[in-house]
Parts: sequence; C-alpha cells; structure tokens
Amino acid sequence: MSAAALFLWFGRSQVTPPYRTALVISGLVCAIAAYHYFRIFESWTAAYEVRGAEITATGYAFNDAYRYVDWLLTVPLLLIELVLVMRLSESETVSKSMRLGAAAVLMIALGYPGEVAADNGTRALWGTLSTIPFLYIVWELFRGLGAAIDRQPEAVRPLIRKARLLTFASWGFYPIVYMAPFADISGASAETTIQIGYTLADIIAKAGVGVMIYMIAVRKSAIERDTAAPATVVA
Amino acid sequence: MSAAALFLWFGRSQVTPPYRTALVISGLVCAIAAYHYFRIFESWTAAYEVRGAEITATGYAFNDAYRYVDWLLTVPLLLIELVLVMRLSESETVSKSMRLGAAAVLMIALGYPGEVAADNGTRALWGTLSTIPFLYIVWELFRGLGAAIDRQPEAVRPLIRKARLLTFASWGFYPIVYMAPFADISGASAETTIQIGYTLADIIAKAGVGVMIYMIAVRKSAIERDTAAPATVVA
Repeated sequence: MSAAALFLWFGRSQVTPPYRTALVISGLVCAIAAYHYFRIFESWTAAYEVRGAEITATGYAFNDAYRYVDWLLTVPLLLIELVLVMRLSESETVSKSMRLGAAAVLMIALGYPGEVAADNGTRALWGTLSTIPFLYIVWELFRGLGAAIDRQPEAVRPLIRKARLLTFASWGFYPIVYMAPFADISGASAETTIQIGYTLADIIAKAGVGVMIYMIAVRKSAIERDTAAPATVVA
Repeated sequence: MSAAALFLWFGRSQVTPPYRTALVISGLVCAIAAYHYFRIFESWTAAYEVRGAEITATGYAFNDAYRYVDWLLTVPLLLIELVLVMRLSESETVSKSMRLGAAAVLMIALGYPGEVAADNGTRALWGTLSTIPFLYIVWELFRGLGAAIDRQPEAVRPLIRKARLLTFASWGFYPIVYMAPFADISGASAETTIQIGYTLADIIAKAGVGVMIYMIAVRKSAIERDTAAPATVVA
C-alpha cells in the first residue's frame, strides 16, 4: 500500500496538471490504508501469540474498527478519484463527488454495527441497510457516470469502464466476507479467512484501481497534449 | 490529518505562487494535529486497557495537555491561513495576522487552567476569561475581515464566507464540550464523548477548512491567470 502510494505520487510529474489531483487522491487512499494496516498488524499481534506451533489468544481484543475507519475515509475518496480522472465540469465534479462520497460514508457507517454484532440477526439487519446506499452507488456508477464515460475520448473509454468494473468487482467481495458467519464458518480459520479476504479486496480496490487511474491519466494527458499542439501551430 | 496535510502540500503545484503560503500553513495545521493525535493515541491506550469486553483504567493519567499544546500552535495558524488566502496588502496581512494570532493564543492559554481544574467554579472562571479573546476574534472575523471579503473577486466571495462560517461553527463546538461537566455528565461515557466531540470539531476546523482554503486558492489562481492573460496580449 505504501509502495502504491509512492508510485502514484511520483506519477504526478508524468501527467498534465488537471490530472494531478486524481493521482494525489489515489495515493492518499493507499497511504491511509497503509497506516491502518500498521494498526491492524499491531492489534493482531497483540491479540494472538504464536509459540512454536501453538497459537493462543492473549485476551486483548483484535480491533476490527481500524478497517471500518479506513473504509470510512478511503471509500469516498476512491469514488472521487474515479470522478476526478474523468475531468468533468467543475459543477458536475462537485455534485457527483458529494453524492457518491456521502453514499459511501453511509454504506460503511451502516455496515459497522452489523460487523461487530454478536448475533446473525443484527448482522443481517445492518448488512441489509448498508446495501441500500451500495445499490445507489452502483446505479450512479453505471447510469450517471455511464453517460459521462460516453463523452470521454474514445482511446480511454474502455480503460475507464475497466476501472469502474474493477471497483465494482472488488467491492462485491466485501459482502461475501461480511456474510461468512451465516455459512456457519467460525473459529480461528474463519477469522483468518475473513482477514485475508478483506486484505486481498483492499489491495485490488486501492492499489489496483489506483494504477488504472494512473494509466487513464497518462493516456488522457497525451491525447490532450496532441490536441493542443496543432492549435498552437495554427496560431 | 496526515492525509489532509499531504493533500494541501501537493496542492501547491495547482495554485499560483501568491497562494502557496496559505496551502503550506493549512497543511502544517493538519500535520501538527496529526502529531498530537499520535501522542493522544499513545496516552489514551496507556491510560485504559481493553481485555475482552472489559475496560479498566491502568492508573496512568490520560494527558489532555496535548490538545491544548496543539491548539496553541494550530488555532493562530488557522486564522492566518484565512487571512493569507485573501491576499490583502502586506501591511494589512501582517496586522490582521498578528492581532488574530495573539487573540487565539490568549484564548487557548486562558482555557487550559479551567480544563484541568477539579471544581466547576474554577472551570467557569477561566472559561469566561477565555471567552473575551474568543469574542474579539469573532468580531474581527465578521467586522474587520468582512470589509476585506467585499473586495474579493465575486466568484470566490461565497466560498470565503463559507470558510469563515465553517471556522466559526466548528469553533462553537469547543465551548459546548468544555461545559459538559456543568451538565452533570461524568464517567467513562462522558470522557469518551468529550474526546470524540473535540476530535470531530478538529477534523472539520482543520481538514475541512483546509480543503476550502485549497478550493479558494485554486479558483483565485484561475481568475487571476485569466485576468492577467488579456493584459499581456494588450501590452
């Protein structure tokens, strides 16, 4: 995550100024995640002790809140980086960022009480509530943003669609992990599987999508430089 | 807070040189806060131990002084960033920064003895003394700075007024938290509520206002570039 953040920030010099904010935000998403993975690491090693082949719980609680605080910050920013790289008008950028960002905050905040709930009924209730803003985000990504994608230069359209699909596909993983307790999966292996699952989804959604944002920004910078060049010659 | 600091510092390349100092200062405010939140985190985890569902006080005191040292440094800078982004004359910038900065230092320094006081009488005394420079700052923001805002380009005036309002509104939260002990609120939940309250107010006053300063700086840079361009052509 730290490496992805540095890659995206160094990439600022490779794109034109209008795309630099998208790379700054994409880098921040990975940096915020890197910070929280340090905290998750500390919490995990404090919660379980490995001596030889024996693993024991120390009694300190493993704090899953770090993931949710991370998502609360990074998921709105992930949607904003996708909007920013499209370089829409200022008013459209602000309105789409606000709506998608607010829906993302709502989605994460509603998911948390279910994640820490002791019984599956409460988990199902909050999970369902959290699905409402999730569906709104999917609708916005494919309807609202779909029209805007059609106005993008032809050469980057497939790449933007792929970034959108990768965002959607990696997000689809979180509800599956969230629902693991319903499949009667529990105990040490289940906990480990959940943590690995969330981590893989995070790497794809943050570092993976970040690299795609970088590729889109580089390609759009080149197209706009080429388009701008003849105008200067004519003048 | 760290992410906001990095965002504001990276943003320097997106504005013209006269606005870069405002972004440096805005970023410093968030970076200073990030440092103190690390110290607060350490102090908090040293003061309370979580084992399973049980939370116990370890006997180590939670040190609230970190917040006040943070505010002593960041609150004057917060007012200075608001003055800087307005790009007033040099003498006006210096005099307004000095007056607002000094009042802010006085406000925080007078508040601290009340915050750590054991009895509510002492708390009320210092709280009231602290309110005097606070009222002076409010008067300066709305009277003194009001006239200067009217001289700003029309396109950024609403945004500057919003930044001023957000500063004022988020600051209004601190006295409410400060007065919590008067409402007979005490114990673990009260302490937690106070800490969450101060933290939310800090995020809005520092990262939130910082992003608004960035937006004002970007918009003013664009306006001044557009205004400068035809003048160069005419010359």
